[in-house]
Amino acid sequence: MEIIETGSVDSVPSFRALGVSCGIKQSGEPDLGVMLCERSCNTAGVFTTNRVQAAPVLVSKKILERGSDRIKGIVVNSGNANACTGKQGIRDAAEMAAEAERIFGFEKSTMLVMSTGLIGKTLPMDRIKAGLLKVREGFNAQKGGSFARALMTTDTKEKFLAVRFDIQGVPVRIGAAAKGSGMIHPNMATMLALFTTDAAVSPACLTLALRRVTERTFNMISVDGDCSPNDSVFILASGASGAPLIDSERGPAFEAFYSALLVAATELARAIVADGEGATKLVEIRVKGARSFNSASKVARAVANSPLVKTALFGEDPNWGRIVCAIGYSGVPVDPDKIDIFFGDLQAVKQGAPSGVSDEECASRLKEREIVLTIDLNQGGCECSFWTCDFSYDYVRINAEYHT
Amino acid sequence: MEIIETGSVDSVPSFRALGVSCGIKQSGEPDLGVMLCERSCNTAGVFTTNRVQAAPVLVSKKILERGSDRIKGIVVNSGNANACTGKQGIRDAAEMAAEAERIFGFEKSTMLVMSTGLIGKTLPMDRIKAGLLKVREGFNAQKGGSFARALMTTDTKEKFLAVRFDIQGVPVRIGAAAKGSGMIHPNMATMLALFTTDAAVSPACLTLALRRVTERTFNMISVDGDCSPNDSVFILASGASGAPLIDSERGPAFEAFYSALLVAATELARAIVADGEGATKLVEIRVKGARSFNSASKVARAVANSPLVKTALFGEDPNWGRIVCAIGYSGVPVDPDKIDIFFGDLQAVKQGAPSGVSDEECASRLKEREIVLTIDLNQGGCECSFWTCDFSYDYVRINAEYHT
Repeated sequence: MEIIETGSVDSVPSFRALGVSCGIKQSGEPDLGVMLCERSCNTAGVFTTNRVQAAPVLVSKKILERGSDRIKGIVVNSGNANACTGKQGIRDAAEMAAEAERIFGFEKSTMLVMSTGLIGKTLPMDRIKAGLLKVREGFNAQKGGSFARALMTTDTKEKFLAVRFDIQGVPVRIGAAAKGSGMIHPNMATMLALFTTDAAVSPACLTLALRRVTERTFNMISVDGDCSPNDSVFILASGASGAPLIDSERGPAFEAFYSALLVAATELARAIVADGEGATKLVEIRVKGARSFNSASKVARAVANSPLVKTALFGEDPNWGRIVCAIGYSGVPVDPDKIDIFFGDLQAVKQGAPSGVSDEECASRLKEREIVLTIDLNQGGCECSFWTCDFSYDYVRINAEYHT
Repeated sequence: MEIIETGSVDSVPSFRALGVSCGIKQSGEPDLGVMLCERSCNTAGVFTTNRVQAAPVLVSKKILERGSDRIKGIVVNSGNANACTGKQGIRDAAEMAAEAERIFGFEKSTMLVMSTGLIGKTLPMDRIKAGLLKVREGFNAQKGGSFARALMTTDTKEKFLAVRFDIQGVPVRIGAAAKGSGMIHPNMATMLALFTTDAAVSPACLTLALRRVTERTFNMISVDGDCSPNDSVFILASGASGAPLIDSERGPAFEAFYSALLVAATELARAIVADGEGATKLVEIRVKGARSFNSASKVARAVANSPLVKTALFGEDPNWGRIVCAIGYSGVPVDPDKIDIFFGDLQAVKQGAPSGVSDEECASRLKEREIVLTIDLNQGGCECSFWTCDFSYDYVRINAEYHT
């Protein structure tokens, strides 16, 4: 397997993608993206667990229900989430998909739709329609901007990559693009991710692989603990590689596909956290010695979402008391006298009490941009990894000023 | 009932209290407080729900178990939480109480103990012992500093008050002091509060009143969503007023006592939030139309703890989308299309969609220091009030720099 850092959703044969500016964002930055496939794709989606679901989520779910084996592409806008927009929002999301189908000459219910941005404003449909025509021109002229760029809200960087691997000797690819930044939280919170592949995979196997991968990647990251009504992850499989169809989870073909998807999703998830609003640190929290994966991830989440832990990390302060605190209120029946905590390779806490290593030494491990924090509960054999970032002045600035 | 704003725990006949500096805090600020009663008191306590419990919590629980009708006072230090300090911590907390008993001439197991401050350092017992002698001198000389001041950590103000009311024609008082600031969270997180009264109340009725009041006050506030291993609330009742004993929850005497305690605790709870680390706003979140009190408080907590909501409030930005989001992930099965949201008296959201009131008008309601945010779920007849504050640059500064 090979990672292609310059690749994206359109590095996969049979797919193309483009981003344009259509005027949703006042800044004039790209805000409309279209990804298309020359074939009908088997498709799977995973969506936000928020009770409040944005119109594009509800509409895309309906489209997938009508036929997850005939999807041709996706249209996505940033700058406006089309969430909390009532019945008008639903009509707009459906029209956005329908207009894309019409403009690109596809049948009904073959285009999915995603939106991200401000909540509570209806979409400027005229601009979106004009933008779709602009995308068509761009495709014809073989020029235009990056699809990943059109997904961005407070992101500072585009997030994309591709991986190349073999299925029974046939080379296949997975392309990927995502947006993240604020409101990232376990359980699929404000992020959009899109995968394309020329592997041939049945809708059931695609769904299984996407769910398992999401559980271990996008559901294991957190920027601020909030989660949004818009989160969606899609994967479209065109089969254009000619590799044999994967229609069973048993055997090496599924395993190869799953592993490659996991690598791509892990890279995107880490990139999202590293670009968290105002983040100065990428923190991996490894919880070991838990009685179950669920317990390990509850502990990791509590620590990752603690504002006190996150501000201490920003201050490069090895304040492990706050970590012990967060473990204590995680809801997991831990034994306080068994907890070990490590900053990088240095043990700060042994059996719930100071290890004797000085604060200065521990602090030296927090100066790097990437930090590994290990918590050993010493209760069992299960573990997990979770990625988060620190809370900085810039987090407050960005979020106090975003709307107005 | 009358509120005495200049009153504190020692405004109640039969009680005295004093705070001194004993050198735990490097700053030289007061860090050791003692409150004593000339009589044996009926006493009740409510403690942190964190699985990690600090040594003073474990020791005070034991002392209360040995006899909740013979308590003579409490000794408290700030600057060091005596948490995560292993067996040495337990020995130190027990010795701190025992030393106070010895110095003030009391029997064993009559003094309670509380600590707040940094986690993971053992107490400087020599300084505490010397400090206790200093307190005894202060009491003899009838001079010394404020008890409430000796509780403070990152608090910017002392928090105390007293209330005066009648029980069956006999005047009685409740005195109160607390510390709060960082790490405040529902479910009794890092805060200490102490009540004194010269009413005569049975231990069972004291416990009942304190639990009910805590449920509606200290458990309904949040600064940053974290909770500490040290939180404790105590009430000591001396009976010195000569008012008849309250030993049943039925009847007007219990009602009068409960109401007065509720008023005192509400004032302290609001003061704690208003003095939250870096807070520039005191925000009351009223949730109405819920199916149960529990649902209402879950929704209020999710909104109150959302970093995105809190930074928007700091920015005086009526970004109700973030409020709807938080309601959506609260875990309560709300109906998104029924949600109404008000900033002060202005309705921003009607049935889950924009009400038509402009952002500018809504923003005008966020310029005050005290803000009321009302959420009507329109699902039932239950409601709650919850108090929180905003997230400012100063919150990050204070918490990034506290330790080092």
